Amino acid sequence: MSTIEAKLQEIGLPLPVAPPAVGSYIPVVRSGYLVITSGQLPFVGKEIAFKGKLGAELHEQDGWNAARLCVVNALAQIKGCVGSLEKISRIIRVEGYVHSAPGFQNQPKVLNGASELLLELFGEAGRHTRIALGVAEMPLNAAVQLCVWAEVTG
Amino acid sequence: MSTIEAKLQEIGLPLPVAPPAVGSYIPVVRSGYLVITSGQLPFVGKEIAFKGKLGAELHEQDGWNAARLCVVNALAQIKGCVGSLEKISRIIRVEGYVHSAPGFQNQPKVLNGASELLLELFGEAGRHTRIALGVAEMPLNAAVQLCVWAEVTG
Amino acid sequence: MSTIEAKLQEIGLPLPVAPPAVGSYIPVVRSGYLVITSGQLPFVGKEIAFKGKLGAELHEQDGWNAARLCVVNALAQIKGCVGSLEKISRIIRVEGYVHSAPGFQNQPKVLNGASELLLELFGEAGRHTRIALGVAEMPLNAAVQLCVWAEVTG
Repeated sequence: MSTIEAKLQEIGLPLPVAPPAVGSYIPVVRSGYLVITSGQLPFVGKEIAFKGKLGAELHEQDGWNAARLCVVNALAQIKGCVGSLEKISRIIRVEGYVHSAPGFQNQPKVLNGASELLLELFGEAGRHTRIALGVAEMPLNAAVQLCVWAEVTG
Repeated sequence: MSTIEAKLQEIGLPLPVAPPAVGSYIPVVRSGYLVITSGQLPFVGKEIAFKGKLGAELHEQDGWNAARLCVVNALAQIKGCVGSLEKISRIIRVEGYVHSAPGFQNQPKVLNGASELLLELFGEAGRHTRIALGVAEMPLNAAVQLCVWAEVTG
Repeated sequence: MSTIEAKLQEIGLPLPVAPPAVGSYIPVVRSGYLVITSGQLPFVGKEIAFKGKLGAELHEQDGWNAARLCVVNALAQIKGCVGSLEKISRIIRVEGYVHSAPGFQNQPKVLNGASELLLELFGEAGRHTRIALGVAEMPLNAAVQLCVWAEVTG
């Protein structure tokens, strides 16, 4: 188990096995030293753990937790692609989309769930650029969708 | 005519000539072996073929067809950039934005129109990562907006 | 002062000092010859200069001006990353998100504020690809959010 995986276990977010590609697209791609995931949803197993809109059914803390789950799922996909999380040399970008009810504008706080986890796991190498948007409608009614871009070695 | 273009013709979606750049931005850029299009709309000639929101004026099948048209227009732009669709070695990412009425959450099914067409045209090399978002308002009232990222050779 | 900075000064948009990274993410990243900013908001100092939705509180011209401010802030971040705007060899992509009230579909005109400024500053090297989306909710109630991708030398 990599040290990153051990940290995840320790904080109660054990790395799942990356679900295989379903349908006509793939969950992760590598191009040179860049690895980019598809949009990740807050799945736990086959269920979306946080459904609904921030500012309506969901509280900020729910969104924060959903964003963490999206990161865990993204890391599972990156491991599936490159073999080990130890090959990640840097996280370079997070694209964060928050399912938002009218008037909800705390997307950054929600996405801090993702950003802070990456920082906790990777230290300075986890500091990334970010976009933070509120979207009106989300696949499967998920609270958050998130793409992670990483640089890898080897 | 490339074999990809022949396939497009066969399925009734002949490749248009890429419209020239209009205004202050360009429809496609190459950086190294990566080609990225601007957001493509479901134009047929100078008209948007599918206008309105999914879940309101438009049915899922309309969106699916709109997503296919966006792919065709993206491929026309990539051909305009690199000379031939045969130079595409892999499709790596599709960014899909679906004009969605409140409560519409089948963005993935709509965008399967794009993903399945890419798979049909390029085989395994057409499998890409994807983001799928529902957006509230879209330029020109278009049903779908889509960016395609491809790796090219030569 | 670089010639780009002199031009900005001349048109009344002097380059600010890039605000330092706050919180758990960073404002700009370099990967090889590519520099990508985080989503930039229309800050002037510590204040968002244009708040609200296009098509409601704000007019198209407000959005156009907000988009220009986002570009200026993006350039400040790029300078902070690579040392000088003279190192920018090309602008390759603008991701533009416009805070839109129901029915507002002139996102492209709003984002022309960004695109035209880049063209004015960098000439042909400022021509970029673009996505233009209307989003329902925006962090800090900002009118526009914008990412700039640039190629740099040296």
